[in-house]
Amino acid sequence: MFISFEGGEGTGKTTLIQIIKQTLEDKGYEVVLTREPGGTGSMLAEEIRDLVLNPKFTHVNEYTEALLYAASRAQHLDEVIIPALESKKIVLCDRYLDSSLAYQAFARNLGLDFILEINKYATKHLPDITFYIDIDPLVGIERIKGRSKFDRLDREKIAFHNEVRKGYLELTKMFSERIIKIEGEQTIPEISIFMIDEINKRLWIK
Amino acid sequence: MFISFEGGEGTGKTTLIQIIKQTLEDKGYEVVLTREPGGTGSMLAEEIRDLVLNPKFTHVNEYTEALLYAASRAQHLDEVIIPALESKKIVLCDRYLDSSLAYQAFARNLGLDFILEINKYATKHLPDITFYIDIDPLVGIERIKGRSKFDRLDREKIAFHNEVRKGYLELTKMFSERIIKIEGEQTIPEISIFMIDEINKRLWIK
Repeated sequence: MFISFEGGEGTGKTTLIQIIKQTLEDKGYEVVLTREPGGTGSMLAEEIRDLVLNPKFTHVNEYTEALLYAASRAQHLDEVIIPALESKKIVLCDRYLDSSLAYQAFARNLGLDFILEINKYATKHLPDITFYIDIDPLVGIERIKGRSKFDRLDREKIAFHNEVRKGYLELTKMFSERIIKIEGEQTIPEISIFMIDEINKRLWIK
Repeated sequence: MFISFEGGEGTGKTTLIQIIKQTLEDKGYEVVLTREPGGTGSMLAEEIRDLVLNPKFTHVNEYTEALLYAASRAQHLDEVIIPALESKKIVLCDRYLDSSLAYQAFARNLGLDFILEINKYATKHLPDITFYIDIDPLVGIERIKGRSKFDRLDREKIAFHNEVRKGYLELTKMFSERIIKIEGEQTIPEISIFMIDEINKRLWIK
């Protein structure tokens, strides 16, 4: 089973993934935890991650950025995700294809068709479940900043993250079979119970 | 004016580009010489080149490879080719889009539509002329090896380069307005005279 987790800042995503991992392992499942961009266990995917996130490159063409994410993802699939799934492990992936769709296709306006096409290999390997934790970016960033005052950069960030959120909400409608939207203002225990419940339903069926 | 040079091993491509550069400079033109993958003057494009050519990565997914070439090309355009063209320089580029089309779309069978789509940014910036130096791979590799005996790897290489050549010949038909096919068994002086002639025709018009 392949599960991806999506959502912006201040959603508690990282903590939630840890809770899910622990819970599944306690039940005796073998779990592989990985994340994008890059991917724990793929040297090439990680080196592409280092390029795409390196602040020394002050100008990065938006096509270059999107293509690097897609390149890293194809390698991550071959070296980490596919082998883990083949040996019947549960793969938990912190961000996956939908991040490229929300950020590059929607917020950066490169278009859904283009981002789906460059991610052609990933679209052949879609997650069984994608949890999208939805939160108002204003609330999310406030959580991180601990109620200190917003500056201009924060406001720009919020405008951008509003676009990203719109993208995710669009995706949730388009891929309603796969993406489960979760109200992010709930508590971490509430969300984790909900997630485990959804995973259990599918593990039962499998 | 933007000129790209394509062709396999043993075609004398590198020498020819040097001759063309010198000839144009002698006539008073400013010339920028660059090459792909990577691109002289773009740090990010060069670092992507280093990834894609690094033998330490023993398994590289074929999508990853094609996407890295395309990512590097978009960056190369923004940082090197477009600025040079805007300041009225002549750009000579050793390999460009058609290399991805011949190698990835044709020889690696990723399909023309896919490679054109991932190179969407480059297709907006096509060369004015592309010189494709055509040679039988058997002759090309023989030239490099200096008539020493072919081993198994050479024979595999030739089979692959035959596919690449078929790709180039297909492209020459598809983009006959842009790509000029040159008979590679001619001498270097003969080819360079022909190239300069073709460039002159266009410089006259411009």
